[in-house]
Amino acid sequence: MFSPAIEKLIKIFSKFPTVGPRTATRFVFYLLNLSEQEVEELLNSIRELRSKTKYCLFCFKPFEGQGGLCEICKNYFSREPILCVVEKETDLAAIEEPKIYKGLYFILGGTVSHLRKKDLEKLRIEELLERIKNPEKFGLPIKFKEIILGNNLTTEGEATALYLEQKLKPLGLKITRLGRGLPIGGEIEYSDEETLKSALESRK
Amino acid sequence: MFSPAIEKLIKIFSKFPTVGPRTATRFVFYLLNLSEQEVEELLNSIRELRSKTKYCLFCFKPFEGQGGLCEICKNYFSREPILCVVEKETDLAAIEEPKIYKGLYFILGGTVSHLRKKDLEKLRIEELLERIKNPEKFGLPIKFKEIILGNNLTTEGEATALYLEQKLKPLGLKITRLGRGLPIGGEIEYSDEETLKSALESRK
Amino acid sequence: MFSPAIEKLIKIFSKFPTVGPRTATRFVFYLLNLSEQEVEELLNSIRELRSKTKYCLFCFKPFEGQGGLCEICKNYFSREPILCVVEKETDLAAIEEPKIYKGLYFILGGTVSHLRKKDLEKLRIEELLERIKNPEKFGLPIKFKEIILGNNLTTEGEATALYLEQKLKPLGLKITRLGRGLPIGGEIEYSDEETLKSALESRK
Amino acid sequence: MFSPAIEKLIKIFSKFPTVGPRTATRFVFYLLNLSEQEVEELLNSIRELRSKTKYCLFCFKPFEGQGGLCEICKNYFSREPILCVVEKETDLAAIEEPKIYKGLYFILGGTVSHLRKKDLEKLRIEELLERIKNPEKFGLPIKFKEIILGNNLTTEGEATALYLEQKLKPLGLKITRLGRGLPIGGEIEYSDEETLKSALESRK
Repeated sequence: MFSPAIEKLIKIFSKFPTVGPRTATRFVFYLLNLSEQEVEELLNSIRELRSKTKYCLFCFKPFEGQGGLCEICKNYFSREPILCVVEKETDLAAIEEPKIYKGLYFILGGTVSHLRKKDLEKLRIEELLERIKNPEKFGLPIKFKEIILGNNLTTEGEATALYLEQKLKPLGLKITRLGRGLPIGGEIEYSDEETLKSALESRK
Repeated sequence: MFSPAIEKLIKIFSKFPTVGPRTATRFVFYLLNLSEQEVEELLNSIRELRSKTKYCLFCFKPFEGQGGLCEICKNYFSREPILCVVEKETDLAAIEEPKIYKGLYFILGGTVSHLRKKDLEKLRIEELLERIKNPEKFGLPIKFKEIILGNNLTTEGEATALYLEQKLKPLGLKITRLGRGLPIGGEIEYSDEETLKSALESRK
Repeated sequence: MFSPAIEKLIKIFSKFPTVGPRTATRFVFYLLNLSEQEVEELLNSIRELRSKTKYCLFCFKPFEGQGGLCEICKNYFSREPILCVVEKETDLAAIEEPKIYKGLYFILGGTVSHLRKKDLEKLRIEELLERIKNPEKFGLPIKFKEIILGNNLTTEGEATALYLEQKLKPLGLKITRLGRGLPIGGEIEYSDEETLKSALESRK
Repeated sequence: MFSPAIEKLIKIFSKFPTVGPRTATRFVFYLLNLSEQEVEELLNSIRELRSKTKYCLFCFKPFEGQGGLCEICKNYFSREPILCVVEKETDLAAIEEPKIYKGLYFILGGTVSHLRKKDLEKLRIEELLERIKNPEKFGLPIKFKEIILGNNLTTEGEATALYLEQKLKPLGLKITRLGRGLPIGGEIEYSDEETLKSALESRK
């Protein structure tokens, strides 16, 4: 329907998360209508994103700047020796945002639905174990006193957390999970049994 | 558009919860197409609902049967001396369903968004206080050791719970609220700050 | 969970169109909280609906009042000798509402997805043929000059219209269908091919 | 929350149509996780889109290739001398896709909600008039016999079509609009009055 250059870019944008062919088409015509300067800014920003972004040696958070540690890990001494294992960057951002949590993080890199070797290999499990055992190797001369399994309460997140728990138990550290219960705005009538059960058990 | 009898019933059904004029219209044509026997069953069921339903003297749960107490309150001796105050019947049903909670209930009859006298009068607050202080007056020779404020975590539910807390504090009993946190299926990335804060604080 | 009378009525309301168990439960508690007078009004209205509603001898529209014909058919002389065949009462109401159409109606009583004898028997096809051939038998001394197949453009509606067309063709009357095209508010980009094709062909 | 390079790109992606900050964030992490080769392909594709895309001298369709005319206008001799004025590229694509329409196009470049000079100046109205009067000036030695106003049936599309009609009337050409009526899948009960009116008037 459209020219080869347009069709090619529609195809590429269609692979972006949440984007279907229709939205991808709108993206392409949006790009066509941008000024030369705006397009250059986009291209440069993508290039800069890739060239400037480093991954923290300890927690795998993408960051910019000097050294091998991100701004959170670099300030380990002003934070508590607690490690919150999260699935992905945006989970870390969501927990960090309210400025209540004062510990450190580790980005696992995903979740698994089945404990298949191939799926598990995508997760940074060995890296996690190594960092908990020997944080000083990665520039953090501390000793963790608690590991929070910050997995989502989705089926995949739960399966991953169970697997992590097994792997971490031999380390003898305190392992916790995020509290379950009614979310803000939650209504009893529309809550599932498990959530209500947790809400009752963790009442206070 | 339709005949008077049809229009009148559309108007009545339009007042049912969640029902708009379009759905009300569908209800009327559904009724028109029922057999005589099915309509009689509906009419009888509504009549029976009204004639057979009593309200528990203690908890205000609608029930059927002998005596003044519902089947939960009647069996007070096999349940724990904990009282869960809920907004409405369906909240009681939701909490009772998973068969984890073993205490008793009290149906408050609603929520308030503002602490206006007129709004507060709709709630059974005096009745609640009386039943906590003197449960034996209503046939329950027990002594409550905890009151759970089972309000929804909506703005109205929160306001009502705060008000109840003030009213109940002088009684010197343990007062708790349902635990807050991530609901089953909940994702960190899409959770509000308050929920995440609760989930972190109540981790275990 | 609830008392027998409540559960029974939940079951009955759950059969109402668009109503699930949750909404049915809300209906029952809504009824419980109505005044005695409001319940009587509901019961009386349902009884009246059933006792007062007659079906027009010609078009099968539910109506109230003297004689065998509804208020539209009764005034046949002031309307055009065109017959619009519709699936159900609410379709008739939707077409009559804008006061543009000046012909008569016939309510078919449904649609079929497959031309199975069992399904076709539910439709008033023989009744339709008889009324088109001999309207005077039913009190309408007119001669139709056009039959509009007012079926919905759903798959079932289309199948039914095709079947009706075959049945009506031998009568030698002009048979039309509702015009296809872009609906008000419609956007070209989001229209299906068939709709665009119709919109182009019927441009004017 | 994120590094400057990440935040900057989130901001840029947030301006893309249909994209909010959350989706923009997902886009950035998607880009971070792409291989070097995939990123290069994206950058090259955007560059190629901009360098290779030309706008047809006659219809303003973006295209690639030799000469000043797009592949549709270039083949004017095998198409009918009808001109369909559309709002944007994707409307042209939607109409061209079903291969029923055999005329030519003109991309107006937008719609107006109010007939304000500033808004109208964004539309290619003068360009349209010139091309209808003297198509040969732009390489199309033909004489149009019909102009289809292919505007959407939105409020803005309708306002724009009315304005175009006034502007084109003096040319003495046949001016048509896309047919209105029930769309495929459309149901009478849920159609607005205007659509039903059109569907009745354009029955056939």
